[in-house]
Amino acid sequence: MSKELIFGHSNPDTDAIVAAKAYSYLQNKLGYDTEAVALGEPNPETQFVLNYFDESTPRVIKEASSEVDEVMLVDHNENQQSVSDIDKVTVTHVVDHHRIANFSTTLPLYYRAEPVGCTSTILTKMFDENKVEIPAQLAGLMLSAIISDTLLLKSPTTTDDDKIALKTLAEIADIDVDKYGIEMLKAGTNTDAKSDKELIDSDAKSFDLGGKSVRIDQINVVDFDDILKRKSDILKAMSDEASAENYDLFLVLVTNVLNSDSKLIVLGEPKDAVESAFNEKINDDIMELPGVVSRKKQVVPQLTDAMVK
Amino acid sequence: MSKELIFGHSNPDTDAIVAAKAYSYLQNKLGYDTEAVALGEPNPETQFVLNYFDESTPRVIKEASSEVDEVMLVDHNENQQSVSDIDKVTVTHVVDHHRIANFSTTLPLYYRAEPVGCTSTILTKMFDENKVEIPAQLAGLMLSAIISDTLLLKSPTTTDDDKIALKTLAEIADIDVDKYGIEMLKAGTNTDAKSDKELIDSDAKSFDLGGKSVRIDQINVVDFDDILKRKSDILKAMSDEASAENYDLFLVLVTNVLNSDSKLIVLGEPKDAVESAFNEKINDDIMELPGVVSRKKQVVPQLTDAMVK
Repeated sequence: MSKELIFGHSNPDTDAIVAAKAYSYLQNKLGYDTEAVALGEPNPETQFVLNYFDESTPRVIKEASSEVDEVMLVDHNENQQSVSDIDKVTVTHVVDHHRIANFSTTLPLYYRAEPVGCTSTILTKMFDENKVEIPAQLAGLMLSAIISDTLLLKSPTTTDDDKIALKTLAEIADIDVDKYGIEMLKAGTNTDAKSDKELIDSDAKSFDLGGKSVRIDQINVVDFDDILKRKSDILKAMSDEASAENYDLFLVLVTNVLNSDSKLIVLGEPKDAVESAFNEKINDDIMELPGVVSRKKQVVPQLTDAMVK
Repeated sequence: MSKELIFGHSNPDTDAIVAAKAYSYLQNKLGYDTEAVALGEPNPETQFVLNYFDESTPRVIKEASSEVDEVMLVDHNENQQSVSDIDKVTVTHVVDHHRIANFSTTLPLYYRAEPVGCTSTILTKMFDENKVEIPAQLAGLMLSAIISDTLLLKSPTTTDDDKIALKTLAEIADIDVDKYGIEMLKAGTNTDAKSDKELIDSDAKSFDLGGKSVRIDQINVVDFDDILKRKSDILKAMSDEASAENYDLFLVLVTNVLNSDSKLIVLGEPKDAVESAFNEKINDDIMELPGVVSRKKQVVPQLTDAMVK
């Protein structure tokens, strides 16, 4: 059996990197020859996690076909989120928790997706199903991915499976999840180290809603003032980028990961649709969104309803 | 939780019908409200199996959205092999052993595919993973599906997982697999009882290969002469249907289930691609395919390579 690479999506978050390492460990135990790699450098949160558990950073690759014929994907399946030459290799395995789109194969493959909060939750089950023990350090990485994807089980994407997996992994790793989790989430929120442009770019996605070009970024913080103190500079950066990229509406969702509230910075039009989507008023470019933490579940569908007639 | 329908592909074979029944049984044990249905009447082999184990025939549906909002798919995923109004319902679960193509969702879902010989093999594992016992009659159905899809473990699609599942199920059902298997396969090969149109329709699937509409049927026999003696009538029926349905290429794979060889009846174009795909010549509309028994593994990928540039 020839060697295969395993990787998560580009712009990797903690789950993308951890799930690759965990799946590679499992597959190698089951007789495959795999290496976990990454499609980008770890972000500050992931780097904190790797340091904390004294685990190596995966090698970053730009293309796969020069090294291998076959690959395994974790935490994504869509072509445009994968390695640049994904069309030149054969995908033999996928473990994921997203929708399936822009993905097809010519051969049967192993595909395991579940609608849970984190890929590492699915992998926790797969270790159990295959009767392979999870080493303590790896369990530490995997529980970090669950904390990251579910914001300490507070995101509405959280399922019972995530809660069970987190508990199992915490026992193996011997970690106090609440204490460690806050420390880890804080490590990922060092906004002072980022420029205004980095802040509005780093987790931004584009959407076409009712013919309007909408850009939605999300910034995690432990204190709203870290962002509010530079609001005018951030609005300027948003305005510059909206002009350059022809965005009609630019939203920056600032999420406090400690108390699970958000504030939405709003630039552009239609503002009335944004207000009606969330049934809140915009004051000085900001809308309060108490209890909102998930762009995927609590922002995009509501905006879609308000903007797509 | 509202009711969901579970079904296999249109023109159902034994696995398509059995896997729907087995998955429905498992999901209902796990708290879902599901009904196994079928996208067509059982073929003679499946009818033999249902009679043998005294199990009911699933209700046949023509559309799903008039009854339910959500469905679960087994033994297929491609839209054109599914229910006619698949675009009007949400697919929440898939259990399958085919390539993934012409399939996408807007929401995360449960998707379990493995490159094994039979969906019922995957389901056997899933019963075990979920610690749900398989009743003896259901085990009989599931082992029949494995025998059918792997031609008594002789097809190159057969994996160790299929062998293990078949052994497990045979013990639960208390069945002599070799003796029962020959009897079952023969029950599915009574071609004299079928019209030409029934023969070319009953196990046919459609594919889009490089922009060409390709129809591939498979007929199991215990003697090639059962089909060759009516070749001209069958070609006439293929030609009529190709005209009516705008198929560019119509292939009928005639497989001898006793000695694991096939002959391919070829109608339409591009014939040169068919010849290059298998490195064989077509003589009087027929190509010899010794050792070929699997459409999925020994026909579709080779044709895809030859037709999709």
